[in-house]
Amino acid sequence: MTDAKYISEQFENLQQHICQVLNVADGKALFEMNSWQKDIGHGISGVMQDGKYIEKAAVNFSKVSGKYTKQMAGLLGEDANHYTATGVSSILHPVNVHVPIIHMNVRYFELDNGISWFGGGIDLTPHYIIKEDAKWFHKELKQVCDNAHPDFYSKFKPWADDYFFLSHRNETRGVGGIFFDRIKPGEYLNINDLLTFCLNLGKLYPEVYSELIKLHGDKSVTEQERKWQLLRRGRYVEFNLVHDRGTKFGLVSGGNTEAILLSMPPDASWEYMHMPEEGSKEAETQALLKKDIDWINQ
Amino acid sequence: MTDAKYISEQFENLQQHICQVLNVADGKALFEMNSWQKDIGHGISGVMQDGKYIEKAAVNFSKVSGKYTKQMAGLLGEDANHYTATGVSSILHPVNVHVPIIHMNVRYFELDNGISWFGGGIDLTPHYIIKEDAKWFHKELKQVCDNAHPDFYSKFKPWADDYFFLSHRNETRGVGGIFFDRIKPGEYLNINDLLTFCLNLGKLYPEVYSELIKLHGDKSVTEQERKWQLLRRGRYVEFNLVHDRGTKFGLVSGGNTEAILLSMPPDASWEYMHMPEEGSKEAETQALLKKDIDWINQ
Repeated sequence: MTDAKYISEQFENLQQHICQVLNVADGKALFEMNSWQKDIGHGISGVMQDGKYIEKAAVNFSKVSGKYTKQMAGLLGEDANHYTATGVSSILHPVNVHVPIIHMNVRYFELDNGISWFGGGIDLTPHYIIKEDAKWFHKELKQVCDNAHPDFYSKFKPWADDYFFLSHRNETRGVGGIFFDRIKPGEYLNINDLLTFCLNLGKLYPEVYSELIKLHGDKSVTEQERKWQLLRRGRYVEFNLVHDRGTKFGLVSGGNTEAILLSMPPDASWEYMHMPEEGSKEAETQALLKKDIDWINQ
Repeated sequence: MTDAKYISEQFENLQQHICQVLNVADGKALFEMNSWQKDIGHGISGVMQDGKYIEKAAVNFSKVSGKYTKQMAGLLGEDANHYTATGVSSILHPVNVHVPIIHMNVRYFELDNGISWFGGGIDLTPHYIIKEDAKWFHKELKQVCDNAHPDFYSKFKPWADDYFFLSHRNETRGVGGIFFDRIKPGEYLNINDLLTFCLNLGKLYPEVYSELIKLHGDKSVTEQERKWQLLRRGRYVEFNLVHDRGTKFGLVSGGNTEAILLSMPPDASWEYMHMPEEGSKEAETQALLKKDIDWINQ
């Protein structure tokens, strides 16, 4: 069995695990699983809609392969003929504005020249930033990182700040998390330990979210808070369509559009020159959408 | 006076004219004009919000100039040191779903090596396509084209079909219109006649929209129609953030983000695997979102 085949099976199991934990956390809606098959490969889109706590959730698995094109070579700077890519990616949009939006992705890329690597990350986008939550979230991430390699958190945390950044707004998407790409087996860890790290990250993801739902999912919501939620969802749309590499790559390379655009919020709004009132909760959150905040030791 | 200076003055006048006609058409809200100044140039954002018929409108004028970068050279394939760009661009989002979304842009680009060109276009995005409206709209465009050059409509109409196309959805943005780019003085017309053509297009724009408001602005709207409006606004967001060259160029080149993102609808929604019911009005519109429809002779 090739590495890619084994890893893709593990990722498929991970997808199922995440959906099961989130089914329990929501308690009302269940994930619907839709398999798809194209010439470039296959996948399963897991979709939850109109749950008690989760308004829209996507947990996608895919395994695709094909000719390694000049465009890819230009992007990745490796010389090869054929690639295989497999991964799980997920975004959760909550009903309640006091529960954050969250995103997770783990992926494995393999070329026929023997080169391969892992990438992934988790990042949290609270509509209203609560510092203790951000601290706890980063501590959980650091724990999984530290269990794998002592350098991971200190390397992957700033990487997330840089990646999940809306340069056209000069603001981060939220309180960040971790992000990593092109981590090759042998560089920090062997292939099995890198896979274990990715799977542990993937398993942390629904655990963290279940806890956030418990903490905030039943809070009352004012009209002003709901309005703010829609504006923040607008920012999420901007990030995904303007900046996110996976989305852009997927849409232009003929991926499964409906599966890719599951990352879109159910609704969103835009307001010209919107500025939160000075001293408001919204202004407080806006002021924290910055890189390089040490959430653990704030 | 250089060409760019004269043309930018004409474009600034055009912006004012468009706002004035639309103020009358709406009858309730008025455009607010905000000037901005950056190191790369200056502009005026005209914004109307919460009108009787127009929910959100942007009419932007700008004139920017600067170093002609390698990135631009790669994109445009000309050798120069300095560029100047000036233009008017506009998008109108109506309150009533029975009034279309509309977009117009005219622009002039000048390099210090003596090369210059015009670009622009108008396209119409009905939430519900009405064939007679599309026919009338294209006849109006053809008239302005024919007054300038006999080849313009037959050349610029398919260009719009290709440009205003969501490849990831395999659908056009609406019923198209005209689009043109890099039309150099001397190629079809001299610089003055090209400018006149652009100004006539710009003037047609609010006239067409005033007529569409009169025709459909007071129609009643069902809940299902409103839901469809939000989904079509979602598609509009997708086009602008994923495909539109002006938006992408503006956001990554450090343009005025608030002015650029005035093109966003006030709100939008996304629904996984949404399929209009067979035989419905929505399905009828969906089936007409195709290239190469001869709207005038349908």
